[in-house]
Amino acid sequence: MKKYIYGFDIGGTSIKIGLFNLSGELIEKWEINTNITNKGVYILEDIYESIKKHQVQLKDVLGYGFGVPGPIVNGIIIKGINLPWENYDLKKEFYKYIKNDLIFVENDANVAVLGETWQGAAKGYKNSAMITVGTGVGGGIVVNSKVIDGTHGSAGEIGHIRVVHENGLLCNCGSVGCLETVASATGIKNMFTQMHQTTNLSTKLKDNYSAKDIFDAAKEGDLLSLAVVEKTSYYLGYACQILSLVTNPDIIIIGGGVAKSGMFFIDKIRKHFQQTAFNSVKDTIIVLAQLGNDAGIYGAASLVVND
Amino acid sequence: MKKYIYGFDIGGTSIKIGLFNLSGELIEKWEINTNITNKGVYILEDIYESIKKHQVQLKDVLGYGFGVPGPIVNGIIIKGINLPWENYDLKKEFYKYIKNDLIFVENDANVAVLGETWQGAAKGYKNSAMITVGTGVGGGIVVNSKVIDGTHGSAGEIGHIRVVHENGLLCNCGSVGCLETVASATGIKNMFTQMHQTTNLSTKLKDNYSAKDIFDAAKEGDLLSLAVVEKTSYYLGYACQILSLVTNPDIIIIGGGVAKSGMFFIDKIRKHFQQTAFNSVKDTIIVLAQLGNDAGIYGAASLVVND
Repeated sequence: MKKYIYGFDIGGTSIKIGLFNLSGELIEKWEINTNITNKGVYILEDIYESIKKHQVQLKDVLGYGFGVPGPIVNGIIIKGINLPWENYDLKKEFYKYIKNDLIFVENDANVAVLGETWQGAAKGYKNSAMITVGTGVGGGIVVNSKVIDGTHGSAGEIGHIRVVHENGLLCNCGSVGCLETVASATGIKNMFTQMHQTTNLSTKLKDNYSAKDIFDAAKEGDLLSLAVVEKTSYYLGYACQILSLVTNPDIIIIGGGVAKSGMFFIDKIRKHFQQTAFNSVKDTIIVLAQLGNDAGIYGAASLVVND
Repeated sequence: MKKYIYGFDIGGTSIKIGLFNLSGELIEKWEINTNITNKGVYILEDIYESIKKHQVQLKDVLGYGFGVPGPIVNGIIIKGINLPWENYDLKKEFYKYIKNDLIFVENDANVAVLGETWQGAAKGYKNSAMITVGTGVGGGIVVNSKVIDGTHGSAGEIGHIRVVHENGLLCNCGSVGCLETVASATGIKNMFTQMHQTTNLSTKLKDNYSAKDIFDAAKEGDLLSLAVVEKTSYYLGYACQILSLVTNPDIIIIGGGVAKSGMFFIDKIRKHFQQTAFNSVKDTIIVLAQLGNDAGIYGAASLVVND
């Protein structure tokens, strides 16, 4: 009897594997290394070998979902990020091992929002969006319980919306003033450095501070740190405003490493969102992500049941 | 045999009626007045009386689509704009006359983008978006051939995204710096007045100029008018950038009265979009709307066949 689902979250160094029941409960999880040699031909074989050894027999598995970093159009991985796959038909390749048609592939930011919507912070909502604030700023959008890919696989790439129109900082993407330049961990550090030079606000932080240090100092009232966090929160509140007027979700989830600073951060984002929100969307809910690093395996598994 | 569809575009002063065949060809169109007295109870009756008189018999009509101004959630008109309907179940009310289950209701901006996507500028594309630049700035978004309503009926309300973060003009919605303040006909006039006072750019325009006058003067090289049109185009290019990174459509349609200034305007919007577009979405197509005032009846009719 088909009573299990596998969710895989493939990264450049490790692959997270989650075994779920059909109710969406995580039964077991483990990790294996990502072997990126030889154009990545060993990755799926390693996954297959790993799950074949498990006591759950593959004939009892309903289907398999994958989260992969990089743009994906119609199930084809256009170009993996930190992975050597290009124009890679993962479903066709994995089918060779598994002989099961229920194989699904989605972008890693998209499976994160699906995971949070299936079993996490946005459980029970049909329309959601997620902003992932980490080394970069990513996002994903769910409409009527389906994630939006977009024509070029770039739906939800909100980290590259321009939010600073004048004198913006240079972004990794080559443009200037992107949300990522003021809201990612790197962006937060850069803003701190810039505001240290251009304002008289005091700070106890010395060199080699991290985004986490800046948030911790802000919580303790460090003036420069507070000003930086306020700016980052303003721009994330602004990103919430944009989402609320484009796809108008019930709920927006803030996740990623920077979001670990918690409700201190969410409250500021909510405040700035409320100050600019269009009247009809003021009820949009803004919450912290709940699933942490497991969001990917949850969301990958959800692809099988939400099909 | 069911071989016709009716599309209705209900406005505060008149109702546009379109009779279509199932291939989406407009066979005939006409208008009737909107009777907004007595909480709008006569509107549907007037529509019914008008189509009952037509030689096409109602038993040959497959279904009926309506475009209505105002937010609509799950088919209920929350609050009509320039119409006295509140929490109005149009489908239930119209069914009393027509005894046909295929009755569909959508927001007027949403039916416009559906019309252009069904038979107009975006024909053949599954993912599209429309920006309507007229007295206000509206919008609609189509993903996988379905229009997005959003949780509060506010999906595609891009006219109220803040685009000017400092010293923005006051918007009708009560906020400041909305796209509508720099891209609507009124916004364009206000920007002209403001820049007339704050710059030394010359202009031949005297008092009582319209947005059309400003565009006409810009085409003839009027310096102040050109600067205003450039700014409006920048912000609309920016709105295209936002759309390209949120739902990532194949094609963005620019419609509404201001768009009648034509390719002169579109070329400028395209230029500004290209300058800020994220690499993967640079191929996003930006075009003029084709259906003009008929977009609404086309899109309303399309609701019947796209169900």
